[in-house]
Amino acid sequence: MSFDFDEIDAVINARSLAIVGASGKPQKFGSLFTASQLIYGFDGPVYLVNPGETEIMGRKAYPDLKSLPQPPELVCITIPAHRCMAVLRECAEVGVKGVIIMASGFRETGEGGEALEKEAVRLARASGFRIIGPNCFGVYNPRNRLTLLPGYDFSTSPGKVAFISQSGGFSVHVGRLCRGLGIDFSAIVSYGNGADLDESDFLLYFAHDPRTETIAAYLEGVKDGRRFLDALREAASRKTVILWKVGKSEPSRRAVISHTGSLAGSYAVWKGVMRQCGVIEASGVDEICDVLLALKHLGRNPGRRLMLCGGGGGLGTYAADLAEEERLEVPPLEGESWARLREVLDQPGAAVGNPLDIGAPLIPLPLFEASLREAANFPHADMLLFDMALNFAYGLGGEEALEQAMDILLRIKEKSGKPLVMVLYSRAEGLEDLAFEELLRRFKWKLLQGGIPVYPSISRALRAISLVNK
Amino acid sequence: MSFDFDEIDAVINARSLAIVGASGKPQKFGSLFTASQLIYGFDGPVYLVNPGETEIMGRKAYPDLKSLPQPPELVCITIPAHRCMAVLRECAEVGVKGVIIMASGFRETGEGGEALEKEAVRLARASGFRIIGPNCFGVYNPRNRLTLLPGYDFSTSPGKVAFISQSGGFSVHVGRLCRGLGIDFSAIVSYGNGADLDESDFLLYFAHDPRTETIAAYLEGVKDGRRFLDALREAASRKTVILWKVGKSEPSRRAVISHTGSLAGSYAVWKGVMRQCGVIEASGVDEICDVLLALKHLGRNPGRRLMLCGGGGGLGTYAADLAEEERLEVPPLEGESWARLREVLDQPGAAVGNPLDIGAPLIPLPLFEASLREAANFPHADMLLFDMALNFAYGLGGEEALEQAMDILLRIKEKSGKPLVMVLYSRAEGLEDLAFEELLRRFKWKLLQGGIPVYPSISRALRAISLVNK
Repeated sequence: MSFDFDEIDAVINARSLAIVGASGKPQKFGSLFTASQLIYGFDGPVYLVNPGETEIMGRKAYPDLKSLPQPPELVCITIPAHRCMAVLRECAEVGVKGVIIMASGFRETGEGGEALEKEAVRLARASGFRIIGPNCFGVYNPRNRLTLLPGYDFSTSPGKVAFISQSGGFSVHVGRLCRGLGIDFSAIVSYGNGADLDESDFLLYFAHDPRTETIAAYLEGVKDGRRFLDALREAASRKTVILWKVGKSEPSRRAVISHTGSLAGSYAVWKGVMRQCGVIEASGVDEICDVLLALKHLGRNPGRRLMLCGGGGGLGTYAADLAEEERLEVPPLEGESWARLREVLDQPGAAVGNPLDIGAPLIPLPLFEASLREAANFPHADMLLFDMALNFAYGLGGEEALEQAMDILLRIKEKSGKPLVMVLYSRAEGLEDLAFEELLRRFKWKLLQGGIPVYPSISRALRAISLVNK
Repeated sequence: MSFDFDEIDAVINARSLAIVGASGKPQKFGSLFTASQLIYGFDGPVYLVNPGETEIMGRKAYPDLKSLPQPPELVCITIPAHRCMAVLRECAEVGVKGVIIMASGFRETGEGGEALEKEAVRLARASGFRIIGPNCFGVYNPRNRLTLLPGYDFSTSPGKVAFISQSGGFSVHVGRLCRGLGIDFSAIVSYGNGADLDESDFLLYFAHDPRTETIAAYLEGVKDGRRFLDALREAASRKTVILWKVGKSEPSRRAVISHTGSLAGSYAVWKGVMRQCGVIEASGVDEICDVLLALKHLGRNPGRRLMLCGGGGGLGTYAADLAEEERLEVPPLEGESWARLREVLDQPGAAVGNPLDIGAPLIPLPLFEASLREAANFPHADMLLFDMALNFAYGLGGEEALEQAMDILLRIKEKSGKPLVMVLYSRAEGLEDLAFEELLRRFKWKLLQGGIPVYPSISRALRAISLVNK
């Protein structure tokens, strides 16, 4: 399919940057964006451009692009829409590879804005540079340390996931949450109205980008339906693709038009296409992150047969109901597997079966290890899922025992060779529980680093497992 | 319907307590239970009974019930099943009003346990005392300061919600989460196998309890289907009833039998009955708490018409899709309401409509206040829902501006007289974001105290609003 890999690659991997509208004034997007690039540490020269300033955040400020010591490969424009064309003409004059236009006030506001947007694209095409946006938060790329509008605290490790988003807010949200989940990106692109480079271009780019294995996308609508379908098919044949499509309802379609000036299209058509191409359909930022986490640790199609474990009988009854809703299987524990667990797990309140109730959120550690090891060995399950009420377990064993329990979980995962999924929550969310929250996050990070995906609820864990099996 | 209010009332409001199997040894349920009662501060004499000890946690220990200075009204038995009958005979001898049997090892383990359970009930009925359990975590009652197995940190304020649960773990989980949400209880009863007092008794009790306005229940199965249906109808005609029923799937039904020895019954029948009686069906601990929060601040049937607000276009498009899934309405903003908001909200990136995009997660405060005030005045909406990305808003305004934004939200709720629902999340959950988590929890508590329900995601908020409208 027709798209220019090298042109897009040059924008995303730009080696020099100018920020037009850079500012030191707090509460301005221009200030937040400038600070983000400087804190995150763009790997190359960063030129701050503002005709009204001589110094911004301790750095020299230039009046315009022509005054820079060298033409920047990438220009980020953070000034209002009506002043953008003048800057784009300067871009054409000095010669740049790409421009990110952050301002809103284009197609999404009606006819005048649409004309302005078309004019900008015409100029870019005539002058040989590409535009991302307008109405966007830019690009996050850990390799050249370019980041999104408020992405100063994003992960610095390159990864294999690309996220494409029409919403700037969601691109930041996904980036931040994923940092806490140990999921790293090849890039995140917030492309807003997609005036020049659009969803099809980025889909194709990441489909062919050797650094990217998984592509997630938040879409409101598409510019060219036929081209997009072809791009989606091509991307899905090369990579795992996750799609979050909004505009299913009438009020949402209204909002889509006033947000990015897109036409949402018929959801039934979308749904059919996604199914046909083997695209994972997700909904909401949390679900996108949950699916990325499952893909990272379980891979695609890890199997639907679960061995459900918990310390407390209610957990298993509820989990089994949810599993059925998510079309997952909970095969009965029978024969030798049953007999061995029965022998090992001599604990009051325990119930041997699938679901398995070990009797309490934390039991004596040798028993804990032996039981979970046997559970992991159950040959008719593709993975083990353990639901732990951490707060309650803490009351039974204290911090040290819990620390050891985490080591046991990591050992079981390692030795059994079977995926282990953890559900870990604190059971309390008041101000007075903050010390506990710290413990929870520490444990979560430890498990994540050891290859165990951690979810905050059984329903989110099961949904994610179901989705990556589609 | 036939049930004895006074007998149940006497057990739940007991004025003296003996703990048989009290222990100071950590990692024992007997120790955790004893510590819980002492820390939470039972309002009356607490007698610790253990023939092997003379002192437990700095208090005198008694060898048996007969040695106590007075017969306790309530006896909690935390020793294994096979030793319970001897204690029950002592209870009969000294004369008590109620017994809570915490141990498992009864009906849920098969024939032998079932016989033991029946024997216990026969003795209790012959001797004039009632049994809660076995296989349970007991009773939480903030008035006499009786608490659940690990309920030492529960709220000390009496409230109007009763929670009945066959699962001990879920009873603790609901209690702790609700403390962080400012939801208080008349009582929580974990009744396990329900050998004597069962779901029907407690439903009827709380239906007639003048302190209780809302009854939530986690049920695995029922002992007497006919009696339960009558009890449910009676309860639902007097109070708001929320039911979480498990055992919908085959693996869950297996787990139900080995957990509390209950028969789950046909889910289709349950579903029909719940609809018929106007019972709210919920699923999962989070959803139970979400519904209780909505009931507290919005009441029953607050209306389905939403005015959706957020700072960022994606929020509204997504929220509108979810609203449709939850059968909620997002009426278009038209006429005078539209014109007034259009005049007030002169902010780049803002989109005036329903959903309303104020342009950024935080905008200059006078604009923020004026816009939300107008939005709250939209006459075709029953409530205002505001989705705030706190972490991003913090980047734009800092802590002081956010503090003022919270005051503005409280003021708008107060002055408009229209319910306001907040969605508040931090956008980051790493260890390094803990300071931010503290801010989030402080703001959440402030809003909750001011009558604004706060949800961690738009999907949970909308689901709760939908459920209380059923």
